[in-house]
Amino acid sequence: MTNLNEEVTKILGQYFEDINKEIMTTLSNIGPEDLREASIYLTKAGGKMIRPALTVLVSEAVGGTMSSSIKAAAAIELIHTFSLIHDDIMDKDEMRRGKPSVHKVWGEPVAILAGDTLFSKAYELVIKSKDKIESNNPEECLGRVNHTLSTLADACVKICEGQAQDMGFEGNFDVKEEEYMEMIFKKTGALIAAATEAGAIMSGADEETISAMHDYGKLVGLAFQIQDDYLDLVSDPDSIGKPVGSDITEGKMTIIVVNALANANEEDKKRLVEILKIGNESGNCGQEYVDEAMAIFDKYRSIQYAKNVALGNIDKAKKLLEILPDSEAKHKLSLVADFVLERQN
Amino acid sequence: MTNLNEEVTKILGQYFEDINKEIMTTLSNIGPEDLREASIYLTKAGGKMIRPALTVLVSEAVGGTMSSSIKAAAAIELIHTFSLIHDDIMDKDEMRRGKPSVHKVWGEPVAILAGDTLFSKAYELVIKSKDKIESNNPEECLGRVNHTLSTLADACVKICEGQAQDMGFEGNFDVKEEEYMEMIFKKTGALIAAATEAGAIMSGADEETISAMHDYGKLVGLAFQIQDDYLDLVSDPDSIGKPVGSDITEGKMTIIVVNALANANEEDKKRLVEILKIGNESGNCGQEYVDEAMAIFDKYRSIQYAKNVALGNIDKAKKLLEILPDSEAKHKLSLVADFVLERQN
Repeated sequence: MTNLNEEVTKILGQYFEDINKEIMTTLSNIGPEDLREASIYLTKAGGKMIRPALTVLVSEAVGGTMSSSIKAAAAIELIHTFSLIHDDIMDKDEMRRGKPSVHKVWGEPVAILAGDTLFSKAYELVIKSKDKIESNNPEECLGRVNHTLSTLADACVKICEGQAQDMGFEGNFDVKEEEYMEMIFKKTGALIAAATEAGAIMSGADEETISAMHDYGKLVGLAFQIQDDYLDLVSDPDSIGKPVGSDITEGKMTIIVVNALANANEEDKKRLVEILKIGNESGNCGQEYVDEAMAIFDKYRSIQYAKNVALGNIDKAKKLLEILPDSEAKHKLSLVADFVLERQN
Repeated sequence: MTNLNEEVTKILGQYFEDINKEIMTTLSNIGPEDLREASIYLTKAGGKMIRPALTVLVSEAVGGTMSSSIKAAAAIELIHTFSLIHDDIMDKDEMRRGKPSVHKVWGEPVAILAGDTLFSKAYELVIKSKDKIESNNPEECLGRVNHTLSTLADACVKICEGQAQDMGFEGNFDVKEEEYMEMIFKKTGALIAAATEAGAIMSGADEETISAMHDYGKLVGLAFQIQDDYLDLVSDPDSIGKPVGSDITEGKMTIIVVNALANANEEDKKRLVEILKIGNESGNCGQEYVDEAMAIFDKYRSIQYAKNVALGNIDKAKKLLEILPDSEAKHKLSLVADFVLERQN
């Protein structure tokens, strides 16, 4: 496990500097100063940049180079950062990447604007990548940029819809697994799918490969979110940086809760809803409730169920990679998929 | 004046239905329902749709048809609506278009998301317009779409920067006219410039014409904002739907204030700053202060100055139209420019 962690950290590190440079260059000319600082802040606060690395990896795996896709990759990271900033305002989250969130530092108005600015800059970046594509056919270059922009805009709509669905789920304990999966696809999976799809588009892959890379990203994204739900319950509190079971103490819906509610008998279901309602209303229901909820999850094997769903997604994602010719990048894409389930934070 | 008002209302009315239909079609498939309703709300609340009408008018004036530019036009209106929704959150404005603002009805989280969704939908619309362009050259079609997207992204960054500058001006009474003009260009002029530029791009105008149409939009936009500042002081309260002098009672910077502060003697300047500070802190400083500020504006002819700047901008804007061949659309663009200064609300 540690080996995989190290290997993937190394893979992501290979692209980090180039992606970071693209982002910093495009954000450096924003004025006034507070808007610029607020826009740059989260990027400076660190982040794995797993999404843009996936874009470049796919780009290389389909036979292209980093140059064709680096701006689209950076754009994906900007969209991700924009959504974090706005989500933190909506969810009243005060911390992000171990630092006070953007709206805590600059206030909500500037944080809203910083998100909007990153959003606009993302499109600007993709448009600029036209001249970096390795193709002598101008129509082909324009077509790829246009296709990527379309993919990006579609993902952005989904991110908003997913966040709205997620907010709508609060205090609603009748959420079906299908609805929950749709929500996490939109909220998390769609942008990762756009990241991998964009890599394929920018390097001129055929339609079948583009579609496979989209699905690979989607499945990896879903597994990533499910692993988050899983880690909240089973991990070492030091490694995830928050108390174990915080999703329960806050009364949040997760795939584990959805599965337990769907399978529990009336009595257990009633009790679990009670616990979640207390969490939802108090924001922190306390450890005795976490233990009680855990017992219910154990009884219905809901934690194992979640792990199995994530595993199934990663298996499918890796099968989709078979469409690619063997290469170093293809191997790395497979490692990143495995890493999603191995990561401890 | 009434005739011009009627004529322009009629011109805008000619395009209203088609633009509205594009917007409603693109927003109708947003889910969940509250996000969709919040996204559609302001469009339903009515608005003159002057920006998208300008896009289509320019498109026609350079020899194109509505079909080439209607989606770009609708996109411009979506960007405008997005910025209104987010600005109302930032400025804590509770009313818009005579109705409670989006965040008053759905809360800030959904309002932030509705803005973000409109933003994404705007890009989606422009991308879709590729197949509507009247050209048999696919490279040409893609090129126009990408050029328009670039123009739009640039305007969106400026809108954010302008709003940040505007917020930074609050309580700052050292703002120079140049800074003020830069702010209103970014906040208001840039999107109108993008609207007129997009019309020219989508219909395949040459670079010189595209640039002239950009400048026409920019000048009309600046005049529009200056006229707003002017109307706040000189109009009939019934026609603008708010008390006369509300900018003063709220301590807001306007071109009139900037001009008066630049020209007043020490005593008058000190007093005007006092009045504005009271307005800025109280949010409503009362009529006696408005009268006193008006006396200072009169003394330094600042209201007349503002009117003259707006007039100069409209003159220049109309001169830029000379690059266009004579047509009905060209004539209408000239009428719209005049209307900006004649309008009473």
